Amino acid sequence: MTQQNPSSTPIRVGIVGYGNLGRGVEAAIGKNPDMAVAGIYTRRDPARLQPLGANVPVHAMEALPAHREQLDVLVLCGGSKDDLPEQSPRLAALFSLVDSFDTHARIPEHFEAVDAAARAAGTTALISAGWDPGMFSLQRLMGEALLPDGATYTFWGKGLSQGHSDAIRRVPGVAGGVQYTIPVDEAVERVRSGSRPQLSTREKHRRECYVVLEPGADAEAVRRAITGMPHYFDQYDTTVHFIGAEELAREHAAMPHGGFVIRSGATSKGVGQVVEYRLQLDSNPEFTASVLVAYARAVHRLNRAGQHGCKTVFDVPPGLLSPRSAAELRADLL
Amino acid sequence: MTQQNPSSTPIRVGIVGYGNLGRGVEAAIGKNPDMAVAGIYTRRDPARLQPLGANVPVHAMEALPAHREQLDVLVLCGGSKDDLPEQSPRLAALFSLVDSFDTHARIPEHFEAVDAAARAAGTTALISAGWDPGMFSLQRLMGEALLPDGATYTFWGKGLSQGHSDAIRRVPGVAGGVQYTIPVDEAVERVRSGSRPQLSTREKHRRECYVVLEPGADAEAVRRAITGMPHYFDQYDTTVHFIGAEELAREHAAMPHGGFVIRSGATSKGVGQVVEYRLQLDSNPEFTASVLVAYARAVHRLNRAGQHGCKTVFDVPPGLLSPRSAAELRADLL
Repeated sequence: MTQQNPSSTPIRVGIVGYGNLGRGVEAAIGKNPDMAVAGIYTRRDPARLQPLGANVPVHAMEALPAHREQLDVLVLCGGSKDDLPEQSPRLAALFSLVDSFDTHARIPEHFEAVDAAARAAGTTALISAGWDPGMFSLQRLMGEALLPDGATYTFWGKGLSQGHSDAIRRVPGVAGGVQYTIPVDEAVERVRSGSRPQLSTREKHRRECYVVLEPGADAEAVRRAITGMPHYFDQYDTTVHFIGAEELAREHAAMPHGGFVIRSGATSKGVGQVVEYRLQLDSNPEFTASVLVAYARAVHRLNRAGQHGCKTVFDVPPGLLSPRSAAELRADLL
Repeated sequence: MTQQNPSSTPIRVGIVGYGNLGRGVEAAIGKNPDMAVAGIYTRRDPARLQPLGANVPVHAMEALPAHREQLDVLVLCGGSKDDLPEQSPRLAALFSLVDSFDTHARIPEHFEAVDAAARAAGTTALISAGWDPGMFSLQRLMGEALLPDGATYTFWGKGLSQGHSDAIRRVPGVAGGVQYTIPVDEAVERVRSGSRPQLSTREKHRRECYVVLEPGADAEAVRRAITGMPHYFDQYDTTVHFIGAEELAREHAAMPHGGFVIRSGATSKGVGQVVEYRLQLDSNPEFTASVLVAYARAVHRLNRAGQHGCKTVFDVPPGLLSPRSAAELRADLL
């Protein structure tokens, strides 16, 4: 049903960073005929990087400032810890862009830094796109706005958590491993029923770990080190499975994720209303990338309309995410 | 979590029409401290109308044009067949407003009529708010924009359908009755699994009717007249239950509804992603009313920002639906 943007040649996108997320952005742009990958920018040796598309130009990161006339919008695919706090403000002084900054507690300061750069330069920069922050944030906002007398519940999973998998791999005696976050079915059902329960951390999610031991490691000591790890695991019911390296590579290489945002509220005495949003993602980075690409389209349009500065998903009229015209959207989707 | 709109006195809302939807709007405004019911406008005798709030002024419909200085925004609570096609353009020439026009096929012409009136008058008028059209439309748009390689499925129910209930009550021999639309579980599960099935009308929904017979009516003839009714029932598996008038009044007076919008797509070969939005509503009119009220807040803000003309949910930045400031939303909900 997607149609070519009637107004122009394809939107020229620069992909900044080319890990799982950058590859996902390249794949997502391939699904959107009104957009094109104009270049991939990397800190690695460009000659050794293999894009999905045969004719996609790869450049060193340093080439970016000279490419201002060749790019309509950047999609930043670096990490929230070290890359984006530096890259997003610096590049917003040169380009319109989208990032997936996901350190929730530091969003206000990231917003201020990017906003100052973008306003001064007349660019448009949208931060914290993806699914959480991103689609889940929108649902939390809409739930609260539509049902002010209510409670919002966010559940994550079943999904592979990168941070918790990294924590497992730092435990002495562990050769490799992954961690899945899993919502507790009973908690989801209680929320869905409209009962607005108070749920503890342990009641909402459980954790499952698949671990490959180093030769001679003490399995029970590793299990105790994982399940007792403060903050990461000690507040959860955690199960540790010991498996072989082949099984880890074969069964646990994908990056599924997802979850639920549920708003449970009342519109009058005894009248309950439940709104549920659910994602089931075979690939977390590919879905995040798809969200970034749709918001890159919107950012380009906002910029052309003279709306400069830093934006979030809360600021974007949903129609701007679609390649179709407003009249088509009203006729076909409203 | 809702906070008073810091910028002003409450938004003054006029409720136009006072059936189930109008009462729902009055109740919803009671849950939003930044808004107030400034008046209810009715075609009935104002003296005989009983608002929920003791001090809410009730006026004849004809008083509206003289109240332009007392009202910031109207919420139109009439029907899509006879009321809104006439009221929305006429009142958009005087007020900013929100309606719930839900005749999908006639949305483009309704839009044009309202847009012309609102642009000429410098008002802002949002049409077709509610949940379908409305929240479901947003999900259809977002699903397509985020997963262009995919299919969208809308299921309605379990819920009471007003149009089908009316059709039952017109069958000779029927003294009263209601009809529930029910999604077929197996179809929902197939879509959720990511398989993108082609589903017939009969495979997606079934219909259940609760009917009170007139004295001496032939139950089997009534059953056949209902299940064979063209368009309304003949394409569905329909079950007819005969009950007494007391049971109808006791068990079937509520107006529950809801449903699902599911987008099932792929981001690369073999990588499926499923987005599901679900509503479980104890009261269809009260939830619709809650959506109208949140969009009335947004419309008032758009108008103050100089954005005139006709709008739909596709045009509204989600942050405008919330009484909270953009900075608060970023800090707390992103």
